[in-house]
Amino acid sequence: MSLSMYQVSVPVFVRGLKVLSDLLGKAEAYVEQHGSVPDAMISARLADDMMPLSAQVQRASDTSKLSVERLSGVPAPKFEDNETSFDQLQQRIADTIAYLESIDEDAFADSEARTIALNFGSFQPEFKGDDYLLTFALPNFFFHIVTAHDILRNRGVPVGKRDYLGPF
Amino acid sequence: MSLSMYQVSVPVFVRGLKVLSDLLGKAEAYVEQHGSVPDAMISARLADDMMPLSAQVQRASDTSKLSVERLSGVPAPKFEDNETSFDQLQQRIADTIAYLESIDEDAFADSEARTIALNFGSFQPEFKGDDYLLTFALPNFFFHIVTAHDILRNRGVPVGKRDYLGPF
Repeated sequence: MSLSMYQVSVPVFVRGLKVLSDLLGKAEAYVEQHGSVPDAMISARLADDMMPLSAQVQRASDTSKLSVERLSGVPAPKFEDNETSFDQLQQRIADTIAYLESIDEDAFADSEARTIALNFGSFQPEFKGDDYLLTFALPNFFFHIVTAHDILRNRGVPVGKRDYLGPF
Repeated sequence: MSLSMYQVSVPVFVRGLKVLSDLLGKAEAYVEQHGSVPDAMISARLADDMMPLSAQVQRASDTSKLSVERLSGVPAPKFEDNETSFDQLQQRIADTIAYLESIDEDAFADSEARTIALNFGSFQPEFKGDDYLLTFALPNFFFHIVTAHDILRNRGVPVGKRDYLGPF
């Protein structure tokens, strides 16, 4: 065994959220340059019945903080999902990162064996901690980061794969 | 340490590729039901200068097989990127899964410490194996699975988050 549950969760989430913050910064700059309405970008979506950019940010925040809460047992902050501006979305990301970075690696001891039961009404999966992280938490988190990127790309914001991958 | 490099790569990639296969199956069924042209779906994209659906499948295949080749040392099959039909894209996915499932977990011994140097011309990052997997290979892989989903969603194919997350 060569990776810890902490290593495959907290730093991965923090990195993804920093990428998301950078993407939002580029989206805001694009809106300003074009003299367009921020709301149009913040509420942009890829399909009528799909979540808009703001909700992709909120769900990326939730997926990361709730995953870490479930695995570490350290309560995560609650947010009201009322962000309507770039500044508020950036604050949401910053607050999520602050929580994630506050978690001690020791809190993840034995988290791979912890039972994690989710309840989405008709969908109530139960996982061992390691399966939860690898088959649910990580794919779910990346879904929202990539979809945020894809919404911006679809709206003409000059971002791309290198922005998504982040600095190396 | 509670996770192996194998566990965080091969089964994650195989699961994602099976999801991608299921998404393509739903896209093909949608095209047939609507009597539309498969090519229009296969070449659909979210932005004029972004890769189409077919290339998202090819890159998901490449990212997974090349990552595993670099980490395990087991040569991956080469593909010609000439798929133009749903059947051919499904075959590409199946061939990629066959390679991934052929790799013995022992081949990943010490892969976390292996040096992985990439060369994309102006972009030549070098990684330790664990950083490569967590900061490059996994985010890159999910990028293409999610973007394939997002293209289908943008074109009206009835798929959603549950399809993307896969069976539990």
